[in-house]
Amino acid sequence: MRAKTPRESRTVMTDLVLPSETNPLNNLFGGELLARMDRAASIAARRHSRRITVTASVNHVAFNRAVPLGSVVTVEAAVSRAFTTSMEIFIDVWIEDRFTGERTKANEAIYTFVAVDDTGKPTEVPLLEPETDLEKERFAAALRRKQLSLVLAGKLKPSDATELKALFMS
Amino acid sequence: MRAKTPRESRTVMTDLVLPSETNPLNNLFGGELLARMDRAASIAARRHSRRITVTASVNHVAFNRAVPLGSVVTVEAAVSRAFTTSMEIFIDVWIEDRFTGERTKANEAIYTFVAVDDTGKPTEVPLLEPETDLEKERFAAALRRKQLSLVLAGKLKPSDATELKALFMS
Amino acid sequence: MRAKTPRESRTVMTDLVLPSETNPLNNLFGGELLARMDRAASIAARRHSRRITVTASVNHVAFNRAVPLGSVVTVEAAVSRAFTTSMEIFIDVWIEDRFTGERTKANEAIYTFVAVDDTGKPTEVPLLEPETDLEKERFAAALRRKQLSLVLAGKLKPSDATELKALFMS
Amino acid sequence: MRAKTPRESRTVMTDLVLPSETNPLNNLFGGELLARMDRAASIAARRHSRRITVTASVNHVAFNRAVPLGSVVTVEAAVSRAFTTSMEIFIDVWIEDRFTGERTKANEAIYTFVAVDDTGKPTEVPLLEPETDLEKERFAAALRRKQLSLVLAGKLKPSDATELKALFMS
Amino acid sequence: MRAKTPRESRTVMTDLVLPSETNPLNNLFGGELLARMDRAASIAARRHSRRITVTASVNHVAFNRAVPLGSVVTVEAAVSRAFTTSMEIFIDVWIEDRFTGERTKANEAIYTFVAVDDTGKPTEVPLLEPETDLEKERFAAALRRKQLSLVLAGKLKPSDATELKALFMS
Amino acid sequence: MRAKTPRESRTVMTDLVLPSETNPLNNLFGGELLARMDRAASIAARRHSRRITVTASVNHVAFNRAVPLGSVVTVEAAVSRAFTTSMEIFIDVWIEDRFTGERTKANEAIYTFVAVDDTGKPTEVPLLEPETDLEKERFAAALRRKQLSLVLAGKLKPSDATELKALFMS
Repeated sequence: MRAKTPRESRTVMTDLVLPSETNPLNNLFGGELLARMDRAASIAARRHSRRITVTASVNHVAFNRAVPLGSVVTVEAAVSRAFTTSMEIFIDVWIEDRFTGERTKANEAIYTFVAVDDTGKPTEVPLLEPETDLEKERFAAALRRKQLSLVLAGKLKPSDATELKALFMS
Repeated sequence: MRAKTPRESRTVMTDLVLPSETNPLNNLFGGELLARMDRAASIAARRHSRRITVTASVNHVAFNRAVPLGSVVTVEAAVSRAFTTSMEIFIDVWIEDRFTGERTKANEAIYTFVAVDDTGKPTEVPLLEPETDLEKERFAAALRRKQLSLVLAGKLKPSDATELKALFMS
Repeated sequence: MRAKTPRESRTVMTDLVLPSETNPLNNLFGGELLARMDRAASIAARRHSRRITVTASVNHVAFNRAVPLGSVVTVEAAVSRAFTTSMEIFIDVWIEDRFTGERTKANEAIYTFVAVDDTGKPTEVPLLEPETDLEKERFAAALRRKQLSLVLAGKLKPSDATELKALFMS
Repeated sequence: MRAKTPRESRTVMTDLVLPSETNPLNNLFGGELLARMDRAASIAARRHSRRITVTASVNHVAFNRAVPLGSVVTVEAAVSRAFTTSMEIFIDVWIEDRFTGERTKANEAIYTFVAVDDTGKPTEVPLLEPETDLEKERFAAALRRKQLSLVLAGKLKPSDATELKALFMS
Repeated sequence: MRAKTPRESRTVMTDLVLPSETNPLNNLFGGELLARMDRAASIAARRHSRRITVTASVNHVAFNRAVPLGSVVTVEAAVSRAFTTSMEIFIDVWIEDRFTGERTKANEAIYTFVAVDDTGKPTEVPLLEPETDLEKERFAAALRRKQLSLVLAGKLKPSDATELKALFMS
Repeated sequence: MRAKTPRESRTVMTDLVLPSETNPLNNLFGGELLARMDRAASIAARRHSRRITVTASVNHVAFNRAVPLGSVVTVEAAVSRAFTTSMEIFIDVWIEDRFTGERTKANEAIYTFVAVDDTGKPTEVPLLEPETDLEKERFAAALRRKQLSLVLAGKLKPSDATELKALFMS
């Protein structure tokens, strides 16, 4: 299988914040944004793997900014690292000022998807070859996140999580 | 007001076809696609004008291909010509083969939006400067469409619709 | 196949404008109205043909009036002309003043549907026999619209579009 | 206030059964039908009273027939009797065979709405004058239903519910 | 089949009132509450019977209190009496004051569900054994309601509705 | 402010998996489950604080089991630890076998909410007093999670994250 670049899976989902998606403060529900990001990430995962893909996990997501009713929201998702049968997807969320058009970063999120065959069995995916500096940085960090996730799940001894351990030893 | 290019208003809305949007044949409802295109076009109109914009009309839309449940659909909208207070938005719809990733054109549509101020009164918008050959072609055709629309509404005498008349005289 | 009248396919869909269908100005989204009209028109097409029907195209639609949240909207659809396997559906949209009950015309639209068999192949539909003056007028205009649509699609030479040409020659 | 006829409030809501409204057996959820009937009935109540109206109660509703995905469902609502500030709305639900077009009765339901002013205080509504035999029959039965409802709520002594008592004495 | 208690079918559905479910007064639509209660009741019926269950009827429901946007609404459903193949479900609806947390009763409703096998044929369900005083009271009243329903449907002579008749004779 | 127990904020949201929430494999979308959990968690946060609450972050969520169309899903949320103005909410998701009624754990998730006043400024919340062993365990782990989150955000030096560091030193 030929390795692919993040550019090949990049998915752009621009849409309005609709009234049915807002909380009593007239801001986008956190939960609705999580659902939009899941759809964008699943498309990126499919573009990388050309397989059926299912959400395996969602990493820490911080909601730093309220997204008001009527905003234009752009969700950009791309594969940040591929493992044997799973893919880490990095998602950037931007909102756009209605009058100046200035874009500001609203959120980042990281989802993991697994590629499966028709029987639901995990199946191999192409490797990822990052191109830009930002893609390379996210590619490297993805390994530390995977180790942390394995440690927290009790599947990797903390002492074996080399990259992660370095963080706490310094 | 500085003229803008189509690139500055280009809006990409990639999303899945969800079960709640399909007809009994498990294809995307025509009406749902019209609604998605309206949202994408309204964002493009806002990006061009930085004003409140409202749908003024929808041109002829042909539905040439069924869009099945689970498809990835990309709606791309950009301003194709600006008039005093209105903007023609050209929309291309692509669907993507789940396994090969091949993109095929599913639809084209043309919507017109008007920019309004807070009291709902039409307000001026920047001119459009097309850059690519396709953008220039759509820019020219937009004038013929506007004339046809005025003729059909009885607001322009057919004999004064110079560009349009040429079509039937040739 | 027995010819049918517009009355036999007339479909009335009265409903409220719900909060989830409104834009930030608290008016019905143009796209949502397009979706409602598509559902009403598809029912009229089915009533005429008693077949599976799919949206083939939407003619020019002008949005002349904003439809505010909480309005009562009535969409009335009926077949305006039948061709071999396709039907033109004429749609009238009315809104009703909450307090006086006065009905005003909000929109008109024209959709074309095709009847298909189980394999998706176009299949014949009954002829239409207009009864009232308005129905006869719409029946006649439907032929000119069909010619215009064929001309614009490059499937009919402008010089052969007899009814349409007369419009520009006069 | 001029009395009104049922015809003046008659509301017809024809629509498809959409995939998002069906249960795992692919039939319309009972609850969704109750919601559609509530919207149709609220429009009929508003047409009779030209006031803000709120649902006060729903009478016994029997679901006799499953309504499958893709059906055309027609909900017809009209005021069946007006009391000082409340209106009983009688609702008939029809479904239509996709191929023969035969209409069959799927449900009946009775809702009560109250007209209120801007402060939410109940306010008077016009009387109802039934015209057809069916309307007269429903008008008479509405009084018995009101008595039964008052008895069940403990607001009327059973012995004073003259019309209702006759039913059990016979 | 072992008899079951109401506790075994008790279903708690706590959720917010979302903007897409409110009427123009910003209160929950009566119809939406009916739909939520139907879902909660269908889960209770399934928990009692472990069968496919379908809504058979809805008893009189009174809407005594408006439920404003942003409220926390708790719908509690439990089987109140089981007959051969049907179950009466009693539903209590509570709303919660946003600041004091005080719960107040907003509504009561009674739905009847039937258990069916894969071919849609009614199938037997376990008996119900009420435990608390309230459960015993509802269990007894359920028989009177069933008789009233049979009388109104013309399937039981009023003179044979022993429990019900006593009410009017006293 | 009086400290509260997890029991006082416990929120139970039982509902069906509806057709509009499923992916092409007929399983609940990961994103829809995230949205449901967000609503349940926001209710728990409000019950603890009696304030307006907004989603601040979502911790790692693993999707271990597909949740098929028609399942009964129970989301249980309760505050697991309170900090000055924020609350960690622990969420357990259960699905129920349609025929045996056996409940199995489908997911766990941890969300953080912040209490705000009317101007959006963070405001103090009551302390949490865990009662059961499970609640005490989650209370202790919440502190380690908070430290990890501060480390990852660059707001706490790894060497100062005492509880967390112990994990990697052992």
